[in-house]
Order: sequence, then structure tokens, then C-alpha cells
Amino acid sequence: MSLLVVGTLAYDTIETPAGRAEEVLGGAATYFSYAASFFGPVRLVGVVGEDFRKEDRALLADRGVDLAGISVAKGKSFRWSGRYEGDMNVAQTLDTQLNVLEQYRPKVPASFRDSRFVFLANSPPAIQESVIDQVAPGALVVMDTMNLWIDTARADLARLLRRVDALFLNDQEARMVSGEPTLIRAGRAILTLGPKVVIVKKGEHGAFLFSKDFFYAIPAYPLEVVTDPTGAGDTFAGGVMGYLAHAGKVDEAHWKRAMLYGSVIASFTVEAFSLGRLRRIGREEVDARFRDLLRFTAPP
Amino acid sequence: MSLLVVGTLAYDTIETPAGRAEEVLGGAATYFSYAASFFGPVRLVGVVGEDFRKEDRALLADRGVDLAGISVAKGKSFRWSGRYEGDMNVAQTLDTQLNVLEQYRPKVPASFRDSRFVFLANSPPAIQESVIDQVAPGALVVMDTMNLWIDTARADLARLLRRVDALFLNDQEARMVSGEPTLIRAGRAILTLGPKVVIVKKGEHGAFLFSKDFFYAIPAYPLEVVTDPTGAGDTFAGGVMGYLAHAGKVDEAHWKRAMLYGSVIASFTVEAFSLGRLRRIGREEVDARFRDLLRFTAPP
Repeated sequence: MSLLVVGTLAYDTIETPAGRAEEVLGGAATYFSYAASFFGPVRLVGVVGEDFRKEDRALLADRGVDLAGISVAKGKSFRWSGRYEGDMNVAQTLDTQLNVLEQYRPKVPASFRDSRFVFLANSPPAIQESVIDQVAPGALVVMDTMNLWIDTARADLARLLRRVDALFLNDQEARMVSGEPTLIRAGRAILTLGPKVVIVKKGEHGAFLFSKDFFYAIPAYPLEVVTDPTGAGDTFAGGVMGYLAHAGKVDEAHWKRAMLYGSVIASFTVEAFSLGRLRRIGREEVDARFRDLLRFTAPP
Repeated sequence: MSLLVVGTLAYDTIETPAGRAEEVLGGAATYFSYAASFFGPVRLVGVVGEDFRKEDRALLADRGVDLAGISVAKGKSFRWSGRYEGDMNVAQTLDTQLNVLEQYRPKVPASFRDSRFVFLANSPPAIQESVIDQVAPGALVVMDTMNLWIDTARADLARLLRRVDALFLNDQEARMVSGEPTLIRAGRAILTLGPKVVIVKKGEHGAFLFSKDFFYAIPAYPLEVVTDPTGAGDTFAGGVMGYLAHAGKVDEAHWKRAMLYGSVIASFTVEAFSLGRLRRIGREEVDARFRDLLRFTAPP
């Protein structure tokens, strides 16, 4: 079924213990759509500046990402610069230049409005909510968020939470949103705020899925080398949503398979800067790690 | 089959965000043997001082822990004092008084020498090795260690590793022993040093088991409240070894079940100071959480 993502496209400059990458393709919607494209077509809504490179457009288009929802605005594309140190679990933002993002309000093209699966990548909650009003009712709406909006836009976030089906957030954000110190309490508390499914991302420690019907815990795919964690969360979400949209079902078994696929795609993401590793693999490599992860967690 | 543990009995004074406990029963062998006693009898070798309380002896004896290997030495029992802050993953040691432990060299009673499963709780590696020479050949010998010995007794540790079947250590220790930054590399590297099984404990993030035949990843049992992490690792090991020794088999399915049981017993341990929570539960509560954990990790 049709999958829509609304979010950022960016150029990132990143330092990690493994090295440095300058002005590489990034952004939540970029990462999400590339990850989801392993499972089927994706529709992308976002904004870029006049400096957005042709080859980056082509990279996404060649993967079956429909770019009809990309606006080109006067000025430069969004830029983010960050550094990872030590255990690489938390990025330290060095610089953020909103550029074309500053005045942007997402417009979902008419041809995208019938999307049955909608992902609202991290943005101010009011902007995320404006997307829901532009798509046909009945879509499965899933959102991501970040600590900044939990701190500065609580009321908007609370309203948005009542309108989404599922929420991705990391462990620290789950504690912030809920005010609960342990993840099991936090996940359950967030279920009472609106979403029917809450997915808590724990980086190298895997992820939890909470719903009223079941709880599911998976480890991250164990990696020998971690080069750059940027995009891990967005490609995790892209793998989850790409799998669900392509399968067209959202029952317990499908959510579980989606979590494993998300974890697998994220594992490739962090093995190189930008989309470097994902660009070198196909569905076979994804399925091989999916089977690995099933084996690593196979019950006695 | 018969299970022997050699290690410390202690009185602990502990501060955590949840409160403070003074002079409570602790020590690796205490925690291990209480945990293992959920599955069958345990033989304990260790030393206490003249101040060791009758009720603490009775507590263990009533659980089927054979105390024939406990020496009572002139002086005071071993004391440890520590504090946990923030995420409670690491204890800060405030004070260590070796007392009777200082001169102690473990003596395995003749009646314990035929033990088929032997656990060497954390001690200087040379002392741990002296125990191997006192038990009949062919026992499954499993050890724990700590950062102190990795730093200060490398050669002894390397010799000991070549004589044990399995090793428990935490994530930080696995990186120290192997010099590898990621756990998957660390685990594999340690397998080349002697042990056929390496179990890496990751606290609230679960545990990994490495062997040449399989890799197994489990999450920790998700807890609503964490009161005191002291003893979590020792009761995890106690649950693992207690289950294995009682089942009498050490194939893949048994190691996996043992890991889940270890995780479950550790989850009860951290819900109260000392043995407070473990004392209030029976095998039924353990089996209920074991089933929970199987359900939480059940594949799609």
C-alpha cells in the first residue's frame, strides 16, 4: 500500500571517532525513504534549496521514491552539523542552519493524499499535525519527535499524540514525555496519551514495542564496526513502515517482523557515513540479516 | 547434578536513589547460592568472621545451601560499602574492608570434590585457579571476574581462562579483556582465549551469549522499579548455573533457557535491597516471569 513521508532533506557535516564527512546527504525524510524503498515505492514531501544536488535527487528517484512532493525554495538546503564521541549514543549538535526550512509549510500533492501509511518525521508538532489534515482519513499515521518539542511545544505535542496511531521515540524522550523513570512504565504511560503503538528506540541496545495487546523486545543487530549513528533512528522507522506498508497488514506478527526489518536496515546505516552502506546493499543482504536476527533471538 | 560455588559472603552498606541499607547480607557467593537454590541444592565454600549472624546462616541452610565449606575465621566478615547514582548501572565503591578475606585461601571439603558444576565467583584469578585443582576433573567450570583483576593480574587471568568452560563478565570488562570496542568482536575474541562459552552481562540491557556454535541475545526483564542493582550479576549467574546443574545438560537449548532464568532471577534481586525480594518469592513467580520473557521475545 502507498507510503508517504513528510520531513527534512539535509546536508550534514559529521565527525565521529571513525572520521569526518562534509556536506553529505542527510535529513530524516531522506534516510526514511531510502530505508523504506527496500520494500516498495515511497512518496516524499519536503523542501530543498537551489543548491540541492541533482545526483541526490536521482539517488532517491532511482530507488522508487516519488519526489512530486519536493518543493525547491530560494536559498540553501537545511544543514546540520554534529559530532559523536565515546559510546556514540548521543549526537552533539555543532551547528544547525534551517535555511529553506524556516519558512516551509508542507504541502501534500493531490496525488499523495490517498496514502494509506503516513510517517511524520521529526518536525514541530503543529507542522506535523497540518499534514494529517491534508491526507484522506483512515490512513495509519505514525510520528517521530525529539526532546526539543517535548520541552518547548508540549500542548501541541499532546494534541498531535491524540491523532496518531503510533509513535517512535528514543529512551530518553520516552522518559521525558511520560515523566516515568523506567521504560516499561514510560511506554505504558504514553499508550494512554493517544497512540495505539509506542516504539522506544534504545540505539545499540535494541528497541521495545508497546501496545495494549502485546509487548515486544528486540536487541539491535550486533555490529563489528560503527562508523556513524546518524540516520539510524530514521532508517529504523523507514524499515518498519516500509515493511508494514508493503505487507499491508498491521497485526502483531507484522509489527514484530517490521521491528526486526527496521533494526536490520538501521544496522547497515551506521556502518558508513550518510547512505554509503545502504547504497551498496540489496534486499538479499537485508533478508540475510533479518534471518540472522531471528536466529540470534530464537527461543530455546 | 551437584553445584559448587566458591566466593564471598559479606555485609554490605548501600545507598541508591531508592534509599539506604546498612550491614545487609551480601557477597557474590551468597547471592549466587540463593539464586541457584530455586533449582536445587548448592554447595558453598567461603569464609565469614565471628560476627556472621546466625539468621543469615539459617537463611541459606533453609534454602538447601550446604554450608559445610564455610570457614569461620577470627575477626570480622568481609564488608563492602557502595553507592549507585543516576542510571544505576555502575556502583561507586565507598569502602572495602577485606577483614577475614585477607588471609583466606578456599578449601573445598572432601564431600564437595565430586561437584559436576563449579562456579568461581569473582576473586583474584590465582585463588580461583586453586579451586580447580581441588575438584574432580570433568566438572563444568565457570568463572566470573572484575576489572581489578583484568588490570592487575592479566597473566593469572589468561592462565585461568584456558582452564574454564565458561566466563561471565560485563560489557565494560569484555572490552577490557579483549581490547575490542564492539561487544560482538569482544565476545568472539574472548572465545579464542579458552572458554567455550562467554556470557556478556549488559545490566538493564540484557545479555549476550557467545559460543562457537551459536549466538544468543536476550533483553533484561523489563522492570517498573529498580531499588538496588547489587547482586544482579551474581544472581544472574546463580540462575544460569542453578538451572544448568539441575537440568544436567549443557546443550544450546539448555544454555538459552538458563540465560532466561538467570535474567528472571536477577530481575527480582534488583527490586529490593539484599535478598529482600528473592526471599518473598517461590519457583512459581520465577516460572511466571520466565514465561513472560519468552512471550516478550517470541518471534513473529
